Amino acid sequence: MVSSDFSSPHRHFPIGVFDSGVGGLTVLRALRDRLPAESFVYLGDTARLPYGTKSPDSVRRYSLQASQFLVSRGIKCLVVACNTASAMALPLLRERLSPIPVIGVIEPGAAAGCGASRSGRIAVIATEGTVAGGAYQEAIARMRAGAQVQARACTLFVALAEEGWTEGEIAETVARRYLEDLFATPARAPDTLVLGCTHFPVLLGALRRVVGPEVTIVDSAATTAAAVAAELAELQLAASGIAPGRLTLMATDGAARFARVGSRFLGEPFAADDVELVDL
Amino acid sequence: MVSSDFSSPHRHFPIGVFDSGVGGLTVLRALRDRLPAESFVYLGDTARLPYGTKSPDSVRRYSLQASQFLVSRGIKCLVVACNTASAMALPLLRERLSPIPVIGVIEPGAAAGCGASRSGRIAVIATEGTVAGGAYQEAIARMRAGAQVQARACTLFVALAEEGWTEGEIAETVARRYLEDLFATPARAPDTLVLGCTHFPVLLGALRRVVGPEVTIVDSAATTAAAVAAELAELQLAASGIAPGRLTLMATDGAARFARVGSRFLGEPFAADDVELVDL
Repeated sequence: MVSSDFSSPHRHFPIGVFDSGVGGLTVLRALRDRLPAESFVYLGDTARLPYGTKSPDSVRRYSLQASQFLVSRGIKCLVVACNTASAMALPLLRERLSPIPVIGVIEPGAAAGCGASRSGRIAVIATEGTVAGGAYQEAIARMRAGAQVQARACTLFVALAEEGWTEGEIAETVARRYLEDLFATPARAPDTLVLGCTHFPVLLGALRRVVGPEVTIVDSAATTAAAVAAELAELQLAASGIAPGRLTLMATDGAARFARVGSRFLGEPFAADDVELVDL
Repeated sequence: MVSSDFSSPHRHFPIGVFDSGVGGLTVLRALRDRLPAESFVYLGDTARLPYGTKSPDSVRRYSLQASQFLVSRGIKCLVVACNTASAMALPLLRERLSPIPVIGVIEPGAAAGCGASRSGRIAVIATEGTVAGGAYQEAIARMRAGAQVQARACTLFVALAEEGWTEGEIAETVARRYLEDLFATPARAPDTLVLGCTHFPVLLGALRRVVGPEVTIVDSAATTAAAVAAELAELQLAASGIAPGRLTLMATDGAARFARVGSRFLGEPFAADDVELVDL
């Protein structure tokens, strides 16, 4: 619990949202839908993306730098909108940023998967780093006894999502190659597919066509937004009033590319001029 | 010309080879084939890859750090085995590393393309950064008056090459999507395709099936190796003797992944234990 010394003067501060690049904009979109009165400051560490193929040490170092930068700008809460950073750096960030609350996307995503599954057979698709770290597997096992989790790295999905090739033959063929054998035997197939990377929601159509209509596909964006709302309420940090909050977008490299690719992820267009370039 | 004060004591030093990750290992392979008596020290900046989607300023800063690190280890010559870094950082590196000779892959690749083309219609495929920077287009125009160059960013090729999906339906479909219209009209089609990214040679089979048997496909690895050999001879920096040189492999992150993915690019297996992790 954060003391009122922290909460009282900070409730009008923005919520910090951090990701390795543009993927976290899918989480930001859900946060803005859920919490329209809040202001947000989003930082995409585009100079060092992707995190998903990098080592835990590097991901922790980069995540800490990005988070401390957001703290220096004044935030009341940090959302780690990157599965890889959530998987590898959350304990470190919570320790170093205390008393600022830090919320990742793994626990909400795992909870959504457990809640959606009837059979307890849950598939998780993510980056190499997230899968190797085992955070989803552990979180699901903790939340649901007897769950059978299969985790698979789908590295190429990130490039497909960033290239904008989210529908059509190539997206479907790639999805089939990664997922087909997981869902090949109906009696043993997962009934739930957790999207363990914030890039993957834009591939929803292709994924749906590969896994069929019966599988529940969940991502952590909406449940993370709900978790943030609950945390702010408990800590008396929620913004009051009905005026819509402000949005500040920052990146560590390439504002033009961030705007071009990111607009698809945020679900609304923005320009390179809307992006503040920062140096970590 | 470098003075003999530089060349004499340095001829037994290794050649430094720098890339953003594993792609430059295709160039290292050609260098070792061409110059078996030379020793090499290779640095892949895997902590900050890919360079191909990053801004010129970031690529220049990263390239300079990596190059200065190699110089601090003692090298007689630097090969920039990354097209993006060659396109964006070569003048800076030559200025800062003087009197150490610095050789990039763009000029040799452009020369190979100009030499191979009969019609003067040349296609270049590369990363977003290399295409946007225009270095290939400028080098070819300078080397061959009247050349018609079409450059195209093929971002997904990098992910395909790293995933090892270099043959088969997906590689061919992606190659077709990027290249089909360039080669659709025989009367206007390029007769030469320059692979302007060191990742792309591993996709040669798929590329060949898309562009057909008549198009000459060139990459800069062999011509870069020839350029390095000529430079060393002119500067009296070539290693003497017939004993095979040594190979040192270094990366800035993820030795296990570097070894697993890199073995395909080097064309011979090596293990994570063979890779020295360094911090820039």
